[in-house]
Amino acid sequence: MSAIQANLEASSERYSATFTKGHLALPPAKKYLVLTCMDARIDPAAAFGIELGDAHVIRNAGASAVDALRSIIISEQLLGTNEILLVKHTGCGMLTFTNADAYALVEQRLGAEASAELKAKNLDFLAFPDLEEAVRKDVEFLKASRLVPGEVTISGWVYEVETGKTRRVV
Amino acid sequence: MSAIQANLEASSERYSATFTKGHLALPPAKKYLVLTCMDARIDPAAAFGIELGDAHVIRNAGASAVDALRSIIISEQLLGTNEILLVKHTGCGMLTFTNADAYALVEQRLGAEASAELKAKNLDFLAFPDLEEAVRKDVEFLKASRLVPGEVTISGWVYEVETGKTRRVV
Repeated sequence: MSAIQANLEASSERYSATFTKGHLALPPAKKYLVLTCMDARIDPAAAFGIELGDAHVIRNAGASAVDALRSIIISEQLLGTNEILLVKHTGCGMLTFTNADAYALVEQRLGAEASAELKAKNLDFLAFPDLEEAVRKDVEFLKASRLVPGEVTISGWVYEVETGKTRRVV
Repeated sequence: MSAIQANLEASSERYSATFTKGHLALPPAKKYLVLTCMDARIDPAAAFGIELGDAHVIRNAGASAVDALRSIIISEQLLGTNEILLVKHTGCGMLTFTNADAYALVEQRLGAEASAELKAKNLDFLAFPDLEEAVRKDVEFLKASRLVPGEVTISGWVYEVETGKTRRVV
């Protein structure tokens, strides 16, 4: 067992020993979802005030709304959420590279067969050069999609990894 | 401002007032990533023992590895992680519907234009009928992909929303 796996097992023993929330229902109690980045420096529950059971939390590289669309449709249409908080953050890795960089890196590090697999998927890494513009664009993407109905409330934010503060952009 | 937005602002004020982790680096300190579900009943940091700055956390509907591949490649190739903990959970919404159900629901609730947009995207909702089998299949998918190099350690787990406990599957 790896040290990381051992940490999960030990943490789970501790967490479950005092766990009292086994009664929570599947649909989020407060009917909202948070879409944020996978970045290791973000703790959504603590930083954004999410109580267990209250909200879906979707996380991917860059808090991409395009990437999250499948999960968002399921959250809203099958599980009844009707508000989206989209939170990108300062110092995001997605500000530091382009698709061409990522494709070149995969070829260099993983070889020709991995590179061919990546090209066959035509994967878009969805990096962005400007943080606040990316927040606005993602909010616009969600508002423009017919798959996100007009009655869903959508706001866009930036979390500052330097200060722990979240400020509204749109 | 909605009540949900007001909660984020108030929580952010409280969190940032005592925040002391502004020095953390972009790459995860413990070089691992956790892939789990967006489900509201999961608090990965608490349940899986993840300290701020230690690990990427990717979350989507069902903890789908297929859906998470873009983020996983970025995590490993650009930000240096080399271990994956994949954690699905009991009571997952993804056990309760099929693609046909979701397509019918979108047409019924959002109308013909939304349905046409969904069909144009040919979106796979990636639901699954058996929990542990889905964990195994996703681990196999990652191990089989040339985009996830062989030296990456991958394990699969189930979090029990009833008990707060996480047990290993593969």
